[in-house]
Amino acid sequence: MALIVQKYGGTSVGSVERIKLVAAKIAKEVNAGHQIVVVVSAMSGQTNRLIELAKQIHEPIDPREYDVMMATGEQVTIALLSMALNNIGCRAKSYTGPQVAITTDSAHMKARITHIEADKVKQDLAAGYVLVVAGFQGADADGNLTTLGRGGSDTTAVAMAAALHASECQIFTDVDGVYTTDPRIEERARRLESVTFEEMLELASLGSKVLQIRAVEFAGKYSVPLRVLSSFEDGPGTLISFEDKTMERPKIAGIALNKDEAKLTIVGVPDRPGVAHEILGPVSEANIEIDMIVQNITEDDTTDFTFTVHKNDYEKALGIMKNTAERLQARDVSGDDRIVKVSVVGVGMRSHAGIANTMFEALANEKINIRMISTSEIKISVVVNERYGELAVRTLHEAFELENANIS
Amino acid sequence: MALIVQKYGGTSVGSVERIKLVAAKIAKEVNAGHQIVVVVSAMSGQTNRLIELAKQIHEPIDPREYDVMMATGEQVTIALLSMALNNIGCRAKSYTGPQVAITTDSAHMKARITHIEADKVKQDLAAGYVLVVAGFQGADADGNLTTLGRGGSDTTAVAMAAALHASECQIFTDVDGVYTTDPRIEERARRLESVTFEEMLELASLGSKVLQIRAVEFAGKYSVPLRVLSSFEDGPGTLISFEDKTMERPKIAGIALNKDEAKLTIVGVPDRPGVAHEILGPVSEANIEIDMIVQNITEDDTTDFTFTVHKNDYEKALGIMKNTAERLQARDVSGDDRIVKVSVVGVGMRSHAGIANTMFEALANEKINIRMISTSEIKISVVVNERYGELAVRTLHEAFELENANIS
Repeated sequence: MALIVQKYGGTSVGSVERIKLVAAKIAKEVNAGHQIVVVVSAMSGQTNRLIELAKQIHEPIDPREYDVMMATGEQVTIALLSMALNNIGCRAKSYTGPQVAITTDSAHMKARITHIEADKVKQDLAAGYVLVVAGFQGADADGNLTTLGRGGSDTTAVAMAAALHASECQIFTDVDGVYTTDPRIEERARRLESVTFEEMLELASLGSKVLQIRAVEFAGKYSVPLRVLSSFEDGPGTLISFEDKTMERPKIAGIALNKDEAKLTIVGVPDRPGVAHEILGPVSEANIEIDMIVQNITEDDTTDFTFTVHKNDYEKALGIMKNTAERLQARDVSGDDRIVKVSVVGVGMRSHAGIANTMFEALANEKINIRMISTSEIKISVVVNERYGELAVRTLHEAFELENANIS
Repeated sequence: MALIVQKYGGTSVGSVERIKLVAAKIAKEVNAGHQIVVVVSAMSGQTNRLIELAKQIHEPIDPREYDVMMATGEQVTIALLSMALNNIGCRAKSYTGPQVAITTDSAHMKARITHIEADKVKQDLAAGYVLVVAGFQGADADGNLTTLGRGGSDTTAVAMAAALHASECQIFTDVDGVYTTDPRIEERARRLESVTFEEMLELASLGSKVLQIRAVEFAGKYSVPLRVLSSFEDGPGTLISFEDKTMERPKIAGIALNKDEAKLTIVGVPDRPGVAHEILGPVSEANIEIDMIVQNITEDDTTDFTFTVHKNDYEKALGIMKNTAERLQARDVSGDDRIVKVSVVGVGMRSHAGIANTMFEALANEKINIRMISTSEIKISVVVNERYGELAVRTLHEAFELENANIS
């Protein structure tokens, strides 16, 4: 007998029919002797319906009241799923976030869980109930309703699993696991049996939008084994696990493609201490997030400074950089929003040389020009012209033989 | 400066446009220096949408989860109305039932309020906020969500007014007050300036569906002055007040028409002690509510026993009565579901003789045959063929000169 936390997203509970299927899936686990806590999202479509109503009142939306309104989405789902479970003889009880109680800070629309008081939940589990918990929500210390931000149901599931010391947290989605790359780009993409938290973080933030990055961080922090599975077909999914030093890991876990970035370069900045701060300071102050940063010193003691931002912030960042260039007496500012970032990710990299070389060689063979490079311990990212994004992914997938389970 | 509790029903908050109108109405009161607590229902249509979803899962609906689901309706409204108020510079905060906190018993779908802990609410009132409270809901002592049953928002409003010692509880509806009778039947029906709680109870239970009867009982019990007003036009509405012995009251407050009853008669029952119980016991056991009861002793020492039930229960009650007749060796059972009940209501009746006589005479003049009579201290009801219902109402309205403010 194991205690398992399962999470079903909006698509998986998008209709009464699907809710009934989820109930049947849960009943199977219960009949196999497991204790089940289920975390659910709002039925797909409901969130947008509510936001639409709020926008008709006023924009920007009032954050406290936004949370009061949005919390109703999951509340409807927990009720319907509990009804469906009780109806097939599987005793179930719904819990809103505050009922659990899930306590958060007071940052409306993007609250963070600070504490879970799971005593009542544990009693009901011991009494044989399936617990159906509303994802994405909680209450602050004063009892105000809060939401964790879009996709926060994953975080709720992981936090519940941590609080209850569950043996596994299973995230059911519309894909059947984490792949070596996007199967829509490379049909030979292979489902990974397992992936480490660090790899998953890189893959999630780089565009494999299977899991919310905060949920993965949370799972890593509290050592909760996480599994991604399909709501619609049976299968083992992908286990997101802790790095096991005794086990051989494949060199490369996967290839990620990110199409959301744009690149800016300020050329010929007189080099002096603090110049990076003078360049990036105004960008940060405008609440623009910066991803990659590359700086070169040229021979004439000026520096070229390149960084990437989200495409949505490109025009704004370009305006800021033009002011900065004038202030710093730089030679020029240039930018390009028709780029993509391709990343090779794997904890095996640490112990294997030559990954970068293989990567650059494969891209060169295809005459794909690399515009920017950045590396971390378990990742190498390159920026290329957006025209070559998919080609680069396919080329690298083949170069690293990811279609095979390549334990090195 | 007064503290006023206002309640707006589902039609009054049925769209974003209407919610904005309600916000403007509230702002006017706030600008006039009043402290306002607003209780709202779910937007019209939402309740039915949710019930439809639940029915698709299973019928009968799981009561605990029904309440979890239904409570979301009001929660959306409090958020939207608070947004609308904040948007026009009227500082507002929403409260769900449990947040107030409104504690109820555990009778799901028809819970009763047992306690209101209004300390937090009072603090926010003192700080200058308009409080927007979800009607119809609360939580039991264990924190389970409960609902007060349909129309329970009126009860929430009255209970909040009682807990906060408000100077008035204003119920905004789609009518502009309580009328001497249904204006759709008698166009000369007149809005009453005031009506006593007792009269209102009789009028409400008899078909003037302006207010929930439980809300009126509650208001009477806690001495909360209640006012019925229109959401859509300005006006003083009708004050539902305590009977003031020093004031002259009109003899008759109004005429009510009830089309929901059917009548059953068991004829020639051998008369002996306990016979009423033997007849009505099986009916009550079948959870059928009985309204009027009339018993006559005939000359041959048998008794005729007539009572009315809701039309929905008519067939079931008839079946039960046939068994009872056999058991008691009664002569016959008859029934009629094509009847209506017409009632004359007024506390002034107590001190004025001749009301019954005026009533019977007026009906006789119109050749309306009375099939059953029942009286209480402030009410006389007659049952007539359904064909004559509206005619009887108009006849009595005229006979008692209700088109004039008839202080006796």
